[in-house]
Amino acid sequence: MDTRLQTPRGTTDYLPEESYNRRIAEDSFRRTFELWGYQEIRTPTFEFFQVLATGTGAELEDSMFKFQDKSGRLLALRAEMTASIARVVGTQLLNEPKPIRLWYIANMFRYDEPQAGRQREFWQAGVELVGSDKIQADIEVVALMTQALRNICLKDVRVDVGHVGIFKEIMKEARLNADIVNAIRVSIDKKDSEGLEKTLNTEQIDEQTKQILRALLESRGGVEVLDKISSLVDNQKITDIINNLKKVLLELQGFGVSEEFVTVDLGIIRGLDYYTGVVFEAYVPDLGIAIGGGGRYDGLIGDFASFEIPATGFAIGIDRCIMALEKQKFQYPDKVKASVLILPVSKEMNIEVNKIANKLREDGITVEAEISGWSVSKGLSYANKMKIPYVIIVGEEEYRSKAVVVKAMSAEKQDQVKIKELTNFLKEKT
Amino acid sequence: MDTRLQTPRGTTDYLPEESYNRRIAEDSFRRTFELWGYQEIRTPTFEFFQVLATGTGAELEDSMFKFQDKSGRLLALRAEMTASIARVVGTQLLNEPKPIRLWYIANMFRYDEPQAGRQREFWQAGVELVGSDKIQADIEVVALMTQALRNICLKDVRVDVGHVGIFKEIMKEARLNADIVNAIRVSIDKKDSEGLEKTLNTEQIDEQTKQILRALLESRGGVEVLDKISSLVDNQKITDIINNLKKVLLELQGFGVSEEFVTVDLGIIRGLDYYTGVVFEAYVPDLGIAIGGGGRYDGLIGDFASFEIPATGFAIGIDRCIMALEKQKFQYPDKVKASVLILPVSKEMNIEVNKIANKLREDGITVEAEISGWSVSKGLSYANKMKIPYVIIVGEEEYRSKAVVVKAMSAEKQDQVKIKELTNFLKEKT
Repeated sequence: MDTRLQTPRGTTDYLPEESYNRRIAEDSFRRTFELWGYQEIRTPTFEFFQVLATGTGAELEDSMFKFQDKSGRLLALRAEMTASIARVVGTQLLNEPKPIRLWYIANMFRYDEPQAGRQREFWQAGVELVGSDKIQADIEVVALMTQALRNICLKDVRVDVGHVGIFKEIMKEARLNADIVNAIRVSIDKKDSEGLEKTLNTEQIDEQTKQILRALLESRGGVEVLDKISSLVDNQKITDIINNLKKVLLELQGFGVSEEFVTVDLGIIRGLDYYTGVVFEAYVPDLGIAIGGGGRYDGLIGDFASFEIPATGFAIGIDRCIMALEKQKFQYPDKVKASVLILPVSKEMNIEVNKIANKLREDGITVEAEISGWSVSKGLSYANKMKIPYVIIVGEEEYRSKAVVVKAMSAEKQDQVKIKELTNFLKEKT
Repeated sequence: MDTRLQTPRGTTDYLPEESYNRRIAEDSFRRTFELWGYQEIRTPTFEFFQVLATGTGAELEDSMFKFQDKSGRLLALRAEMTASIARVVGTQLLNEPKPIRLWYIANMFRYDEPQAGRQREFWQAGVELVGSDKIQADIEVVALMTQALRNICLKDVRVDVGHVGIFKEIMKEARLNADIVNAIRVSIDKKDSEGLEKTLNTEQIDEQTKQILRALLESRGGVEVLDKISSLVDNQKITDIINNLKKVLLELQGFGVSEEFVTVDLGIIRGLDYYTGVVFEAYVPDLGIAIGGGGRYDGLIGDFASFEIPATGFAIGIDRCIMALEKQKFQYPDKVKASVLILPVSKEMNIEVNKIANKLREDGITVEAEISGWSVSKGLSYANKMKIPYVIIVGEEEYRSKAVVVKAMSAEKQDQVKIKELTNFLKEKT
């Protein structure tokens, strides 16, 4: 097919109906974030590759759309927002009172093989909560992600919560080489116990560590999963982490996120290197991929500043939310293209039509004007086809008595209405 | 300076205050476009270069950010929206009832030398009105552009209106070669009469054509400018164009765009090749560059379809609007970061704090929660610094009697308020 008629793979046009549905979700996200005290931030769509690659890891680096500026410097389209926001905080917001609460709704770009829920250009709604290392900050972002998803009318939103620190701490104590650590990480991430056993058998690893790693792989469930790990380790850092995760489970309940909606999963390994603490993912039934995720990244801002600032945040995949709403058969509110079509009986009435249309729009009524040189009957049939509920017909005779004809398309009935009463007349009807 | 700490030239971070100001303008544009019956459309940020270069001309082609996909096909970041929307209409909306009214708010990219009002990434708000070749369609988009600019509170919005058909028709009759036509075009565009005379003298051009071209160069003003050209030419197409431009001047008045705000300028040559008819630009005093512009492009959609569809539209430069609002000392509405800060007296009250915060947010009150482990006094001093008007203090004793303490920061006074009355109490105050 002629590429002149196509969009590149993994990109999409959004026609009016889909754009409208997306606006509903985006407006809801924005409203939720603002009700929680978050403020918008915007960063450039492309940046120096060096900035975007900070802390994100090789996989994401590989998937970036890269290009050079005329001086040969490597630029890339952003693949996620956190590195960019960390740069802004680390260079421009260091002296702002903390915590800083930021939200964004923005498009991201990844050169992956396109599939359902993985486009090359995709939209995210997210927040970053900067300046608190307390578990209450983690709890706030998990609760806010859940609430934001519930507020767009998704049902049965579930959250998996883990902590990258437990695995890191066990590996630190075991003193294994990086390749082995990675093999173990991948096995745990994939819940591949056979693979894990294979790695464990080829290495000198003490029995206790093996036992803990096997437990980690199976550590998916409620608070009992945390107690199991607790019983196996004797490490103050891990004990602290487990106590904090218990607080997450407990205090989320205050936000209406009861235990039935939260799963502990200590095997969660998110695809980004910068995470340092609590990590989490959101799911809805019937969609096999996460619709949101995030976690704590206490080191990333320090990469752009002379000192470290703790932070946590999440990103929601808007495209995936739209898919999930469809699967849940969400009924979007009806979009009426316009409440009123306004038609002149003859061209001599054009100025009068414009005046009336302008006044109605000032009063908040959506008015479509006739601009195709149609007869009244052609205009009426257009209104019928487009489901426009009212047609105003501006004729010379009625206009002399400061009135117009208003036709209700559904009732096949028409009224003569004084122009100065038109707004009230229409507002009562619509 | 370390590029890791910078954004590329011509790109900008928008911190919360500026993001907020931009949202106000964008929300206003969106609201205005929708009140006129326009619907949103979104297209990919990058497309095949071939698509984006359709009809736009060499200058814009040169300024596009280009890169290749892994199959070596040339992609580019969009530099304007009209080519993309023409592609959508020509491939997906051919059978929709006409007219089709579309709006967009989107970012564009041009690799030019950055200067005030010309960033490499910049935002536009625009519309395309597809399917009518009538002058009423041109009048609608000129009126809508003016109204959209007035609705973001810009004062003294002026419009220059011209028509590329007059120059084209005169050149057609004169049968000059392309280089000469271009030299004449540039002189007229720059109002460079010396340059024009030089070109006219080197060529065999009849006196009447010379006279008309001189008149075109000077054709800036009111309706008298149109009469002047009329008196010089005897060409039915030009006569029709002039009669249409007179209708523009007349019928715009119905939209409250009186003659004092409109200037005829037959020398307007917009930077895009695809224009075929009425073209226009918007200005405000004290800003030397156009803040918006557009025109009719009856051939562009046909480049993507098997037949032609007439269309007209405009784009407003949002960055330039923000500059103009600043010059006009526009006072943005105050942004209150949050209406309420909520604090527990002790950590044992965290769940209760979360419950109360959640309920207030459900009721539409913006609540910032304490997540840094602060004492009450530290929380109060934060609220004071951030100008948060109310602080809710949740203590065990009051909570047992189902109440909390609400402190009004301005009045240095505090009330004990029943939790179930909290929303009403705060809504009355804020």
